[in-house]
Amino acid sequence: MARVIVDVMLKPEILDAQGQAIARALPRLGFSGVSAVRQGKRFEVELDGPADEAAISDVRKMAETLLANTVIEDFTVTVAE
Amino acid sequence: MARVIVDVMLKPEILDAQGQAIARALPRLGFSGVSAVRQGKRFEVELDGPADEAAISDVRKMAETLLANTVIEDFTVTVAE
Repeated sequence: MARVIVDVMLKPEILDAQGQAIARALPRLGFSGVSAVRQGKRFEVELDGPADEAAISDVRKMAETLLANTVIEDFTVTVAE
Repeated sequence: MARVIVDVMLKPEILDAQGQAIARALPRLGFSGVSAVRQGKRFEVELDGPADEAAISDVRKMAETLLANTVIEDFTVTVAE
């Protein structure tokens, strides 16, 4: 059994209102030194079999069609160690 | 300038209804071989300075107090390469 991670983030050119709200709240809460925050989604996908090329390719299709909205979001697929 | 990643996931003992919904939808959409999906949040925190021990410790406090609900969520802090 293998675990594959899909990270989905808004494209850099898309305004991330949630991330901006967090970044603006930080100084009020006593945290300095942060220039920006972006918020996205993380999916942990547990596979029945090994994370071979075919499985990774399947997860990639899954991310494209189900997990990410590729009009406004980018995603990365990585195998968890 | 450094980037620190905060991953926030529901604790394993907490029911992840979103993840379950995704896992159940996959066979219908033609994807097999996935035993479970868990969904969480990913924050990309851009620091003004380097990601030294003090900065990482600050981000850890930030995650504890602002980004994660530690009653039901676990978080990890990693420096992006």
